[in-house]
Amino acid sequence: MRLTILLLSALFFLLACAQSSQIEQTNTQQPAPQNIIFMIGDGMGPSYLTAYRYYLAEGKQTEIEPTIYDELWSGMSSTWPDDQTLVTDSAASATALATGVKSFNGAISVDQQHLPIGTMMQQAKRLGKANGIVASSQINHATPAAFLAHNPSRRNMDAIADMYVDYRINDRPVADVMLGGGSRHFIRDDRNLVNELQQLDYQYAASWDELNKLTRAPAMALLAEGGLPSVLNQPIEAPLQHLTSKALELLAPSQQGFVLMVEGSQIDWCGHANDIACAMAEMHDFALAIQTAKAFVDANPDTLLIITADHETGGLSLGANGVYEWRADLIYGVQHTVRELTNRFSDVAEHDVAELWRHHTNLPLTDDQLANIIAAQHDKDDLYWVLNQLINDATRTGWTTTGHTAADVPVLAYGVGAEQFHGFMDNTDIAQRLMQMINASARSQ
Amino acid sequence: MRLTILLLSALFFLLACAQSSQIEQTNTQQPAPQNIIFMIGDGMGPSYLTAYRYYLAEGKQTEIEPTIYDELWSGMSSTWPDDQTLVTDSAASATALATGVKSFNGAISVDQQHLPIGTMMQQAKRLGKANGIVASSQINHATPAAFLAHNPSRRNMDAIADMYVDYRINDRPVADVMLGGGSRHFIRDDRNLVNELQQLDYQYAASWDELNKLTRAPAMALLAEGGLPSVLNQPIEAPLQHLTSKALELLAPSQQGFVLMVEGSQIDWCGHANDIACAMAEMHDFALAIQTAKAFVDANPDTLLIITADHETGGLSLGANGVYEWRADLIYGVQHTVRELTNRFSDVAEHDVAELWRHHTNLPLTDDQLANIIAAQHDKDDLYWVLNQLINDATRTGWTTTGHTAADVPVLAYGVGAEQFHGFMDNTDIAQRLMQMINASARSQ
Repeated sequence: MRLTILLLSALFFLLACAQSSQIEQTNTQQPAPQNIIFMIGDGMGPSYLTAYRYYLAEGKQTEIEPTIYDELWSGMSSTWPDDQTLVTDSAASATALATGVKSFNGAISVDQQHLPIGTMMQQAKRLGKANGIVASSQINHATPAAFLAHNPSRRNMDAIADMYVDYRINDRPVADVMLGGGSRHFIRDDRNLVNELQQLDYQYAASWDELNKLTRAPAMALLAEGGLPSVLNQPIEAPLQHLTSKALELLAPSQQGFVLMVEGSQIDWCGHANDIACAMAEMHDFALAIQTAKAFVDANPDTLLIITADHETGGLSLGANGVYEWRADLIYGVQHTVRELTNRFSDVAEHDVAELWRHHTNLPLTDDQLANIIAAQHDKDDLYWVLNQLINDATRTGWTTTGHTAADVPVLAYGVGAEQFHGFMDNTDIAQRLMQMINASARSQ
Repeated sequence: MRLTILLLSALFFLLACAQSSQIEQTNTQQPAPQNIIFMIGDGMGPSYLTAYRYYLAEGKQTEIEPTIYDELWSGMSSTWPDDQTLVTDSAASATALATGVKSFNGAISVDQQHLPIGTMMQQAKRLGKANGIVASSQINHATPAAFLAHNPSRRNMDAIADMYVDYRINDRPVADVMLGGGSRHFIRDDRNLVNELQQLDYQYAASWDELNKLTRAPAMALLAEGGLPSVLNQPIEAPLQHLTSKALELLAPSQQGFVLMVEGSQIDWCGHANDIACAMAEMHDFALAIQTAKAFVDANPDTLLIITADHETGGLSLGANGVYEWRADLIYGVQHTVRELTNRFSDVAEHDVAELWRHHTNLPLTDDQLANIIAAQHDKDDLYWVLNQLINDATRTGWTTTGHTAADVPVLAYGVGAEQFHGFMDNTDIAQRLMQMINASARSQ
């Protein structure tokens, strides 16, 4: 009898173990994080991550080490839009990432018939979760817009802003937190959307000081008329990290969890400008924002952090023109975007150009190069590309286009459900998996 | 009593289950595949995989689907050499991939002091495993060379060939199977290495017919004086797949397993030539070779298939010059490499040029473009870049260099131990993990 009891005890123990292991397995197969932080590096093709690794090592004067991007690197995603081009714009790719459905270039979460496609932010709101968007562009620019609104054209930015207020779920606007730029679209002669939101109990900040005083959701901050100033030019240190930190602070109290989209919008703008110093500064701010998000996951383990890009911009290559070298070390000397340098050089006296060049870029300047700058001073467009080429030639940075390319983009993941994002996938797979998780999380509450 | 027996049975069953699950876990932590197939797409940066996906879909006239590359995509690898350039050549990266140690550009498995660094092929041989190399270049070109020989310069190709015979482990040459091109380095006025190997019991093939008649290792096939003809120009269908299949057939009987390195050597050569049709044809042959290797793993599950690139070549981008489009569909019309087209167009009568262009490329030709071709006919270099640009402009393909770039490269894995290659790693990590596996596999025998 004693043997029987002993055996029964052992049996129950083992059965319990087996069951607990099975439960773990089930959870692994259907992870349902309470919170999702979805970060999008606009234009951030794989070469941007590689470049940032070497840029950072040169800046630190240390051995080359994996960056935060490398640590979280999990898979790769294709980005083709639903037309014949293979090269997506930010609207079509944001639609794919926000809805799980591909559409045409220019589309803001509408299909080929211009009918609205439900977004993960609307889904989250409907299921009782809080949500928010953060962008260093206008908050109604293509990428954030596709998470909150519907329009056949990304260019209808006022109509998109209107929808941020007018599209209601349970009688409330979709987003609980909206931080970024774009006040000119929200405070207009015909309509003051900020006032309307304030009447709906939104806190509002129009400056970085006021941002710090936001205490709870719902809240909005519009810190520039258009996009925020480029990181390389502006006095605020790590603006995107700052915004990300505030958004997480405001969303964290949500009882049923949240979905937050954070866009590093201007990586893409630097890519369009073929401006490597600009791109590295934006990549650094985005990396710091990721650090903040990762720390949130560590403190709130029931959270998934997922990071990707909507497409590659510029056809960036490290090494160019047959030379086997990329001079990451020279980028640190370049203290402004090429656009800002163009402004500063367009009306400088000829005899000051060489000294100013050294001061602003710390790059060498031959007599021929000096003559090229001076010859281009009368035309800002010409001057832009002369200065641009000096920096790209010195650093051996290659670009093939001022537009986008069809390159696959990195997928990074951390936290609950991260294993779902290993290997190769399509951009629609990312959204579909996230939307399944949002459903599963709501069901389990 | 019956209950006791029942409970005892149940207990043993559960204990057995628990133990088997623990064994599986241990194996997962220290995988030791009997066989390793290590495939290197020379120059195969991530954009080559993206390009091949869309090229294949256009060729099949089907929806875009994941390719064999996509299916196996597992991680990304950095490739920087041990100098200040950040951009590796094939010798330094092959040294990293063959030994787990970084060295300088040009180095064939020697360190900064020119001292030899042990390679995984030498290690495998020492531990009683068979091994082999397959390449579509000369078999003593930089990549295969770093697996078998040591030299401060990849250019010393005769000395490297000598070492394939003279470097002995247990009184035998290192490689049991060597298939590719390069006979001019092995059959020379001063030395006939083929004869020497035949005296060491190697079977030898000098043609594709003779290749089919090789029956056992050790064996060598040298099917061209230099590299094999470009896939796009040559009559043999899928030459690399053919060689891979034969190498696996010859190595499979090895009692203690084998390590096989297969290089898709000429993806890189097409990249240097900025020739997209050439690159896609080589990518297709490499994909077929991977299919063959994957089928071998399915039939011989105690095998790891690992695939990577040594670096990116050309700064390839899909989309260029501001246009949001990549015309994968136009590549199929281009029936020869640009080099071959240059040969064919250099002495064609002016009035035949337009018709011949349509015949060989199926691309449109404006009057201006026609005039450009005719104007360049007197100079093959000029003509090369005129024809090259016509194809790149039509397909919207961008390149930034005729050399290499610092781009991270894809890592693909399948079979026993594949999970060790998830996420981001360095090229030396790949070799170090493989060499640990080779040791562990030998210990377990």
